[in-house]
Amino acid sequence: MPQPRDIAVIVGSLRKDSFNRKTAQALATLSPAHLQLEIVGIGDLPLYDQDLDPDSPPAPWVAFRERVRRADGVLFVTPEYNRSIPGVLKNAIDVGSRPYGKSAWEKKPGAVVSVTPGALGAFGANHHLRQACVFLDMPMMPQPEAYLSGAGDFFAEDGAIKDPSLEKLLRRFMTAFADWVEMIHRGRDALASDQHPG
Amino acid sequence: MPQPRDIAVIVGSLRKDSFNRKTAQALATLSPAHLQLEIVGIGDLPLYDQDLDPDSPPAPWVAFRERVRRADGVLFVTPEYNRSIPGVLKNAIDVGSRPYGKSAWEKKPGAVVSVTPGALGAFGANHHLRQACVFLDMPMMPQPEAYLSGAGDFFAEDGAIKDPSLEKLLRRFMTAFADWVEMIHRGRDALASDQHPG
Amino acid sequence: MPQPRDIAVIVGSLRKDSFNRKTAQALATLSPAHLQLEIVGIGDLPLYDQDLDPDSPPAPWVAFRERVRRADGVLFVTPEYNRSIPGVLKNAIDVGSRPYGKSAWEKKPGAVVSVTPGALGAFGANHHLRQACVFLDMPMMPQPEAYLSGAGDFFAEDGAIKDPSLEKLLRRFMTAFADWVEMIHRGRDALASDQHPG
Amino acid sequence: MPQPRDIAVIVGSLRKDSFNRKTAQALATLSPAHLQLEIVGIGDLPLYDQDLDPDSPPAPWVAFRERVRRADGVLFVTPEYNRSIPGVLKNAIDVGSRPYGKSAWEKKPGAVVSVTPGALGAFGANHHLRQACVFLDMPMMPQPEAYLSGAGDFFAEDGAIKDPSLEKLLRRFMTAFADWVEMIHRGRDALASDQHPG
Repeated sequence: MPQPRDIAVIVGSLRKDSFNRKTAQALATLSPAHLQLEIVGIGDLPLYDQDLDPDSPPAPWVAFRERVRRADGVLFVTPEYNRSIPGVLKNAIDVGSRPYGKSAWEKKPGAVVSVTPGALGAFGANHHLRQACVFLDMPMMPQPEAYLSGAGDFFAEDGAIKDPSLEKLLRRFMTAFADWVEMIHRGRDALASDQHPG
Repeated sequence: MPQPRDIAVIVGSLRKDSFNRKTAQALATLSPAHLQLEIVGIGDLPLYDQDLDPDSPPAPWVAFRERVRRADGVLFVTPEYNRSIPGVLKNAIDVGSRPYGKSAWEKKPGAVVSVTPGALGAFGANHHLRQACVFLDMPMMPQPEAYLSGAGDFFAEDGAIKDPSLEKLLRRFMTAFADWVEMIHRGRDALASDQHPG
Repeated sequence: MPQPRDIAVIVGSLRKDSFNRKTAQALATLSPAHLQLEIVGIGDLPLYDQDLDPDSPPAPWVAFRERVRRADGVLFVTPEYNRSIPGVLKNAIDVGSRPYGKSAWEKKPGAVVSVTPGALGAFGANHHLRQACVFLDMPMMPQPEAYLSGAGDFFAEDGAIKDPSLEKLLRRFMTAFADWVEMIHRGRDALASDQHPG
Repeated sequence: MPQPRDIAVIVGSLRKDSFNRKTAQALATLSPAHLQLEIVGIGDLPLYDQDLDPDSPPAPWVAFRERVRRADGVLFVTPEYNRSIPGVLKNAIDVGSRPYGKSAWEKKPGAVVSVTPGALGAFGANHHLRQACVFLDMPMMPQPEAYLSGAGDFFAEDGAIKDPSLEKLLRRFMTAFADWVEMIHRGRDALASDQHPG
């Protein structure tokens, strides 16, 4: 079995019964066991203000940055607000990216699942997020893409996924993501070993 | 002279000495006089959380929505954070767009100026913002586009624009925006008068 | 009744039985009568090559540019190829935008309908196209957006729309577009009349 | 020394003296020796038309697909036309992506250099291209990004890069791309060897 990998899960909605939060929780149960998913809260992060960096960052910024920095990979689960990334998620990205030169996101393999009760799979959020991740130097898994529409019907009372074909799709997504994380880390190890042979 | 038009100016950075804030202030002085520009603060808006709508919106949300709703047009002045809209600006957009069906942005003619001390004109923010404005039903001025690079050299001590050619460009931008706002309002009036002749 | 408006319809697929072509034809029958829609072919446009401009443009480029230039508005009906605008449509846009300073698209009010047999409404094509139209100085109708999924089931043998609710949606879209075109032209007329009173 | 890697270079402009073509040629001379760059022509590809697939694809489509399929990686060098990918480049992408299920691009590690005589680094082309590459399942190198502005001043008579700091930047880009290609291939090998031990 592959070594454990710590995955920071960032959920783009603060709503208590958020479909995105429930999807994130379902993904955690459907993931290969060596991926250890933890939802990292973003609701208490003050709005990013550069005047506070680097001398007086609010405590929640510091804790968030440290938590993300520890991760072996990042999974974003996000709704679309107004055809783009929710402000609350973008704020978390901005906070994690600073201070300049000390981004917590750097080089983390990542993936995105976009989720909506509507019809268009939150496509706009999915791809705006990917554009930000280019700058963050995060290798993002291209396929399988995951655009989940109709989230109002996904969950049973206990949070389980009702539709077996959706469950299968999510399971396959997490397997692919586990492979992606592994491929990036193993590839880097191989490269480092070439360049600095023991 | 055309009738006065109230323009809400939304600045996408909270930094006290923000190049964007200074640019917004310069734009106000260079604008045709019948456009009345006012910077509407967004730094005190709590992160959007749908659980608070429509029953218990924080007071700053309510005030922000009312202020935007009164405006005859909206001017965004924004930096780029991580190749997209700053979270703080996207949060303001999300707050103003809700509760569902009661967006404060609806039908406001708008424009965007993107400003960066760097080299690429904050292009990523400019166009992600435009994508959001499609959903918000805001007719956005297409040309002139305004991508302002090298903002570190823009301002004299007193906030005036140092480079006359930049000043001219900003003045022309504001004239074009005034025409855009006027064209949309006049066009709507003409249409309404066709459909409901007195 | 408003005066006649000539609308150039650009269909982003060359396939003979293209869902987009059929949708464009349906839109023509569902449009307010004063909008006169004509599909302008793009399949014979040689790939854009700047070496041919302005001295030796291929005849199809010249004809296309003249046809677009005559129009009072432009309606794009497009599929999504690889999460973006089809190359064939982007080529037509590029051809029409040149030679430098003589774009045929300039100031035409426009709208986009994106159509797919798949599930995500061809969202990627819709918004990449809108980004190009900013540069082209085309005021694009923001709402209603039209993302049409499941196009495999849209049409009866004779090309009519089978689903009455879809027919109603398309009819409303065309009414809104007619208003958009009218609003832009009437607004411009009012502005011009202010600035150059007779 | 790492094993040779065959890199298909796709240039997004047909102009004979294209800055993009010259940049591609310069990149080939500045690349680590084990990357073997070859510019693959796209100017003779007929506009994509699904009716021709899979039964009667034009010969240039077939040759292009075979050439791309052989590559170990893909380097795009592209201008921006109208804030997006040139139609000629998007057409090549579309041709290579078909017939359905047989994309020639699949899983190729890739990178993009965007080049403009203007000021904004062809940002719009760079990121629209990246969005397409998500669908194509191409792992795209996130950093270093390469937005090259002011291309009118890049080249000496013999095509060499005049500015040493630009030459250094391009050399570093190619070294980073070589590492990216190697990392992806080595990571995949490691993964495959885990899953199917000999």
